[in-house]
Amino acid sequence: MAKQYDDLGSLKGPAFTDHTFQHYSEMNQDRIYMDYNATTPLEPEVIQAISEALQDAWGNPSSSYIAGAKAKAIINQSRENVARMVGGKAEDIIFTSGGTEANNLVLHTAVEHFRRSCRAAEEGGGQQNGSSGLPHIITSNVEHDSVKLVAEHLQKEGKADVTYVPVSKVTARVEVEDIMAAVRSNTCLVSIMLANNETGVVMPLPEICQRIKRLNRQRERLQILLHSDAAQAVGKIPVHACELGVDYLTIVGHKFYAPRIGALYVNGPGTRTPVYPMLFGGGQERNFRPGTENTPMIAGLGKAADMVTCHLSDYQSHMLTTKLYLEERLKAIFKDKIHFNSHFPGSDVLPNTCNVSILGPTLQGWRVLSSCRRLLASVGAACHSDSGNR
Amino acid sequence: MAKQYDDLGSLKGPAFTDHTFQHYSEMNQDRIYMDYNATTPLEPEVIQAISEALQDAWGNPSSSYIAGAKAKAIINQSRENVARMVGGKAEDIIFTSGGTEANNLVLHTAVEHFRRSCRAAEEGGGQQNGSSGLPHIITSNVEHDSVKLVAEHLQKEGKADVTYVPVSKVTARVEVEDIMAAVRSNTCLVSIMLANNETGVVMPLPEICQRIKRLNRQRERLQILLHSDAAQAVGKIPVHACELGVDYLTIVGHKFYAPRIGALYVNGPGTRTPVYPMLFGGGQERNFRPGTENTPMIAGLGKAADMVTCHLSDYQSHMLTTKLYLEERLKAIFKDKIHFNSHFPGSDVLPNTCNVSILGPTLQGWRVLSSCRRLLASVGAACHSDSGNR
Repeated sequence: MAKQYDDLGSLKGPAFTDHTFQHYSEMNQDRIYMDYNATTPLEPEVIQAISEALQDAWGNPSSSYIAGAKAKAIINQSRENVARMVGGKAEDIIFTSGGTEANNLVLHTAVEHFRRSCRAAEEGGGQQNGSSGLPHIITSNVEHDSVKLVAEHLQKEGKADVTYVPVSKVTARVEVEDIMAAVRSNTCLVSIMLANNETGVVMPLPEICQRIKRLNRQRERLQILLHSDAAQAVGKIPVHACELGVDYLTIVGHKFYAPRIGALYVNGPGTRTPVYPMLFGGGQERNFRPGTENTPMIAGLGKAADMVTCHLSDYQSHMLTTKLYLEERLKAIFKDKIHFNSHFPGSDVLPNTCNVSILGPTLQGWRVLSSCRRLLASVGAACHSDSGNR
Repeated sequence: MAKQYDDLGSLKGPAFTDHTFQHYSEMNQDRIYMDYNATTPLEPEVIQAISEALQDAWGNPSSSYIAGAKAKAIINQSRENVARMVGGKAEDIIFTSGGTEANNLVLHTAVEHFRRSCRAAEEGGGQQNGSSGLPHIITSNVEHDSVKLVAEHLQKEGKADVTYVPVSKVTARVEVEDIMAAVRSNTCLVSIMLANNETGVVMPLPEICQRIKRLNRQRERLQILLHSDAAQAVGKIPVHACELGVDYLTIVGHKFYAPRIGALYVNGPGTRTPVYPMLFGGGQERNFRPGTENTPMIAGLGKAADMVTCHLSDYQSHMLTTKLYLEERLKAIFKDKIHFNSHFPGSDVLPNTCNVSILGPTLQGWRVLSSCRRLLASVGAACHSDSGNR
């Protein structure tokens, strides 16, 4: 076992120095990092941007003197960079502490929007117009915990009904018809990740959004809001909010060589699309997300976003080449004992994601990985690393 | 005017190189930063800790392999450092994105705790036991917006009653008797900042906590929770959670030479003291505050906390010496035209805070500051910098 896995070390071809595998020495032993969907290292240029901001842009961005203005300028530039990366406008970007907060904010907003719509409807005549009762959220059964557990919490508290549409066993995608079949008169939000973290499967967001928008045009009061958690997709495939058709898009820095900070794209926050803040405070981020801005981390996020905008196709083809090479070598070594859990007929898969099982009675993922000396990989989402055998 | 203010430049005595005034060159002009209550620059050693973590501890702290373990170890060390700084245990520290989030979390928790206590009481026999109706929060009229606006929001939404106890015009403190007089049977939280950001006045927290605790011993069901936003106090005066007697303490990195991240001290979170999360996700911070940990910023916070633990008395006496020198020079220059808004009989004031008015019909703060070429200071909290004339 260990012998076979050591052979995988030979995977470090000339193309593996960045953006796919990373080697590093720890206790005089070369290791190969293969868990980029858990987190990525930071790009050297991103570290540089953070370091400069730590040194030179420590002023409070709300201060009116020059130290504040400098920090403000960096934040504005980053906002533009992040917006450009996802095809939005600078004012559509709300910086958050990370993807968890961005996802929570969307579900909170949808429920609050429903509540206010109901109240407005009641005050406007007290009629039953299909927006009384509990708000209904549609999501999939493969979302990140920062969507899934929020939905479960809302359900448990009696604040929302939730439908978890299962992904197809054939395509590993959530299918458009299944989403449409789940819609109720009280549905206020559809939240579907853009690409799955474990299979890499890309969900049919454009189709979902198109169909929901068509439905919205027929609905009188309660429009269904559209959200996609794009944590795993940004930096790996093109992500354009308008082309997808979403109202909200979650962006997570540490999945694309940026620091641990996030952003929520909102199509016209507070005007075209509602945002109800979860936090209250000093008015930063136009009150949508107050708290003194984390200038250095925002600077890093902006830098990484700019790099994605400039180099995405290179990154993409490099990742794909690497993945195909990995899969080829795995097949050559393990032959019919390997099964690719990330191959689905008709489904697009992220260029960086490879999910395999090695077939055999005692070859559970955690056993296999624990006998690898050099490969750092995982059997599932890092936040589930305790649950082991998947 | 400009001439007089330029004289203040001479204030940069030998002791002014760190922790009080900071000079920096911008467009070939020496400026003197005097707005440390808005934000501080980062300690070089803190920047070093952040930089090392950016380079070497980028692994996902939840990952079970070595890259994750390294990040986890840094976070654990920081948690211990922050705990030691405020006299708590490591498990009492919950890292947050900043003070705003920490303060919001406390008010959210208090209201949720009240709701659950009511429900438990109803299920236990349906008696009126003084914890039905709306939860009642006591705070002061000089809190930061991240307490004040949360309270106002809860009021507006019909989720809580709030009493804003005004500070004494003589002492600028909120007085213990005024707090006690505001207590109702439904009071679930007293939230009073430890030191004010504009006057520097230190509030009588130990006395408030003692009196409330005495009252709590007489109350059957609903205990009053005690919170202090220590944003402005940490790193300037000793802050020991147990000696103060609080259940919750808000810690804000960028007020003590650490990065833009925060922590909430909770006296036994989830056991002795309730914490109800606002965010749901991947289980980090024991589910009290999920989201992949911001390792580098946490590393920086831990380093700064350690420095406070080791050097507080030096920092404190240095700040005080500097402030006294500043006040002496201001008096010498402006004579009876200067008024110290931060001098109150019988009240302790932070060693770093000086609040002055220059008396005269056209000498509003913003006018005075706009004619200063070298001094970077403010007329109030940075997040109110638009409101100008104070």
